[in-house]
Amino acid sequence: MSLTFADRLYQSIEQKNSPICVGLDPFVDKLPSHLVADTRKAFGDNIQALTQAILEFNKHIIDAIYDIVPAVKPQIAFYEQYGIAGLEAYRQTCMYARDKGLLVIADIKRNDIATTAHAYAQAYLGTTKVFNQEVEMFPSDAVTINAYLGKDGIDPFIQECKKHGKGVFILVRTSNPSAKDFQDKTLIHGATLFEAVAEEVEHWSKEIIGNCGWSSIGAVVGATYPEQAKKLREIMPNCFFLVPGYGAQGATAQDVKPCFKQGKGAIINASRSILYAFDPEKPEYFAEKARQATVAMQKDILAVL
Amino acid sequence: MSLTFADRLYQSIEQKNSPICVGLDPFVDKLPSHLVADTRKAFGDNIQALTQAILEFNKHIIDAIYDIVPAVKPQIAFYEQYGIAGLEAYRQTCMYARDKGLLVIADIKRNDIATTAHAYAQAYLGTTKVFNQEVEMFPSDAVTINAYLGKDGIDPFIQECKKHGKGVFILVRTSNPSAKDFQDKTLIHGATLFEAVAEEVEHWSKEIIGNCGWSSIGAVVGATYPEQAKKLREIMPNCFFLVPGYGAQGATAQDVKPCFKQGKGAIINASRSILYAFDPEKPEYFAEKARQATVAMQKDILAVL
Repeated sequence: MSLTFADRLYQSIEQKNSPICVGLDPFVDKLPSHLVADTRKAFGDNIQALTQAILEFNKHIIDAIYDIVPAVKPQIAFYEQYGIAGLEAYRQTCMYARDKGLLVIADIKRNDIATTAHAYAQAYLGTTKVFNQEVEMFPSDAVTINAYLGKDGIDPFIQECKKHGKGVFILVRTSNPSAKDFQDKTLIHGATLFEAVAEEVEHWSKEIIGNCGWSSIGAVVGATYPEQAKKLREIMPNCFFLVPGYGAQGATAQDVKPCFKQGKGAIINASRSILYAFDPEKPEYFAEKARQATVAMQKDILAVL
Repeated sequence: MSLTFADRLYQSIEQKNSPICVGLDPFVDKLPSHLVADTRKAFGDNIQALTQAILEFNKHIIDAIYDIVPAVKPQIAFYEQYGIAGLEAYRQTCMYARDKGLLVIADIKRNDIATTAHAYAQAYLGTTKVFNQEVEMFPSDAVTINAYLGKDGIDPFIQECKKHGKGVFILVRTSNPSAKDFQDKTLIHGATLFEAVAEEVEHWSKEIIGNCGWSSIGAVVGATYPEQAKKLREIMPNCFFLVPGYGAQGATAQDVKPCFKQGKGAIINASRSILYAFDPEKPEYFAEKARQATVAMQKDILAVL
């Protein structure tokens, strides 16, 4: 594996001229009604009907956008809520996206002490030993992780990144209203907690710099707070930013602009505004509408860069 | 559901005179060799052989300790690393423990923005709607969660706790060496970050106080830092503490003593020192050895209270 995750992401963004990630966050109540009707007919009123509808939906969305975006970001919670069958739909979604040449950013926000973090890192970025075989369990190209436990809980992920050309995005400043509760606490030396986390992430990021000059150890920076994004871009000049908050959460193209450095180094995620762009009265056009929404978002973002 | 999680935990600790939780953290390389040999014979060199061995191991451990401890704590990462089959073993472990009258504390450390946290909360504490049914996906009595995203990511868990008599343990001060990286940062008003988190947890904990006087909104407080535990006990007088770090991670009974208030309100976890107490030359005695190690730990802890 000669290319790092950052190299692969950078190249794909350049090739597709699209710093955009589509979040695969299935809400069963919002799925096109005919998809659920079809699987319900096939499987009955059970969990298989729901999870197969989710998988079908994801495949159609992926088919509709794989040539115009570099990455998808499945949020694993929306699959975990459907139990084992849900996680199987998650796994198949990841594999389908990969087969289409997409990078998969697993939004898992895992975190733990070292031995445990190692198990998570194997599950999502590396392989698990099964007798004489090394098996990929939930294949993805990068994961989101939470740094509250400090460096020894981060290291196992970094090790798998080095081994397998993978990446991580560490939560620095999130997009939700109560992100401020702890992340904005002011420390004794004057910086906020999220700035202190950013300083450490910048420090750690030097462990894997790709040929493109960017690190595979990136940061999650919410688009909903542009002034903070600007500061964070200065603190972490070489970290890729994964930026949630555009679209349904309210951030605009102008808001996400500070996440970029000379137009590079960030990937903006949108989920609901793309997946559910269709008119519920005309659900059969959901994939086309998702593509149109993605193209519109692409234009919107590129216009400010 | 009239009893809160705290009431159920408190009662069970009293009845069994045992403030102890057994961590179910399977390491395949450490399992009794005959268990893996048996399942390998039955299933072949594949993932089923490993995950069935894990499940068998857990069942024997549960059989050996269910009458002398109130709770078990499966660490989900060790199951996720075995993919879908691993998570099925996790689910069956939780159900088996419940059937034996044990409380299950799911060590998942999940965290996210509100809509996503709601999905996790449904998966582990509540139910998910599947057409006209409400289904428990990964049944447990309490979960560990990470508060870096602030209150709006905690609320969905609290809501499920209220609805279903469940509990949460919020990461405050963890047991690992680099816990200090961020948790010990000093804030401008003089407290550390972990103390600030503790103050919020104490505030939130008032939302669910049980008949026993303790809250179902508890805290994870590592046993490896007794001075900090003492401070945290003062800040959070009514929060149950889930205390990792005893045994294999190095903490002693004296170290965990400050986690209690007049001998109540804490549950001390040990995993490896109980599960792998057996002599690898005599693996057939693993369950008896686990029980002996649990009894020894119980005596050790009770002696200092």
